[in-house]
Amino acid sequence: MESKKIAGERAVDYVRDGMIVGLGTGSTVYWTLSRLGEKIKQGLSIQAVATSVQTESLAKEFGIALIPFSKVESIDLTIDGADEVDPEWNLVKGGGGALLREKIVADASKRLIIVADESKLVRHLGKFPLPVEVVKFGFEWTMRRLSGLGCSVKPRLSGDNPFVTDNGNFIVDCSFESIVRPRELHREINDIPGVIDNGLFIDRASRVIVGCQDGTVKELNSGKAK
Amino acid sequence: MESKKIAGERAVDYVRDGMIVGLGTGSTVYWTLSRLGEKIKQGLSIQAVATSVQTESLAKEFGIALIPFSKVESIDLTIDGADEVDPEWNLVKGGGGALLREKIVADASKRLIIVADESKLVRHLGKFPLPVEVVKFGFEWTMRRLSGLGCSVKPRLSGDNPFVTDNGNFIVDCSFESIVRPRELHREINDIPGVIDNGLFIDRASRVIVGCQDGTVKELNSGKAK
Repeated sequence: MESKKIAGERAVDYVRDGMIVGLGTGSTVYWTLSRLGEKIKQGLSIQAVATSVQTESLAKEFGIALIPFSKVESIDLTIDGADEVDPEWNLVKGGGGALLREKIVADASKRLIIVADESKLVRHLGKFPLPVEVVKFGFEWTMRRLSGLGCSVKPRLSGDNPFVTDNGNFIVDCSFESIVRPRELHREINDIPGVIDNGLFIDRASRVIVGCQDGTVKELNSGKAK
Repeated sequence: MESKKIAGERAVDYVRDGMIVGLGTGSTVYWTLSRLGEKIKQGLSIQAVATSVQTESLAKEFGIALIPFSKVESIDLTIDGADEVDPEWNLVKGGGGALLREKIVADASKRLIIVADESKLVRHLGKFPLPVEVVKFGFEWTMRRLSGLGCSVKPRLSGDNPFVTDNGNFIVDCSFESIVRPRELHREINDIPGVIDNGLFIDRASRVIVGCQDGTVKELNSGKAK
């Protein structure tokens, strides 16, 4: 928790007056939002785009001015979390179920800063089940097609019912033993009709900020920055 | 209209007792449904899966027994229309707005028979605007990304409001001058976050039945049949 806090807060150092900022979703981004709120009280002026209904309501709570994504030409900087980060900064995202909006906002962003605690750094992606957003129609068939890629599949639940995303779709969690070729897998998954998108983020991160258990923050800024 | 009728009806010759049949959407498939209804009255026994709410209600009208797609292991044969068919049987579909369900059902089908009047046969795809199904969130951004592929884009309307698909999404009609490499374009479009799928059907047709103005029916069965 402390390591999430220091990473989430550190990212706010990159936010400048007048920026349009994309706000990700999750427990590390929570600390970004809370720190942003403090700096806004001290005079920072930004406009923000939220990637989930959850982040939207947190932003309001912290006094962060929101604009609809539809009103935005492009986003200067997005700060978001990740469930896994590999040495090439490929990411698995979507544990919180917001991967689709997060990916669209990332796509519209000049820079994407990822905040994470060090437990998220992995040699190979895949220990964390890969979330895939699928349309409701025919999702049983789509699940069968996904399992044909060599993973075990599980429809995500919310209590006894299927979990429904902010876009009205389902999430299937796909457990691969290890994802060795994330770029190819990303394509294979998205080629399946009925799949909308998946939690692999390839070549999207421009910076990764990692909070460590010893209270330090590492900023990885080599990688394949965009 | 006569050429649509003879093509749509001819496809029913391929339907056998006991089959699970996928039913496409549109004005040519209408004649498939009407003929199927007649044969069912004469004793043909099948179960059918509909690709749209519109086809669902027509099937009921014609006395065709429907089962939910979710109850089906696989589909023996699907009969569907197309907006364009090129010499390699690549298709543009989705004029009716049902491309996503049509593609999922086609994907689950052992065979896909396309019915069309001869005006649909083209040397190169692309005269008919390519329909792309996109999520509502951020669709303005997604449209901008689509236009970056070299087409002019138009959100599909229903009266004064955006047209909404059976899956709750929007359709963007993309006018390319000519689609020379459909396979590559299919991939480039689907790689854009926010795109769910597009109306290009590559390597999916197993047979094409064409109704001609002179009252004859041509069955193209060479191509790259699956």
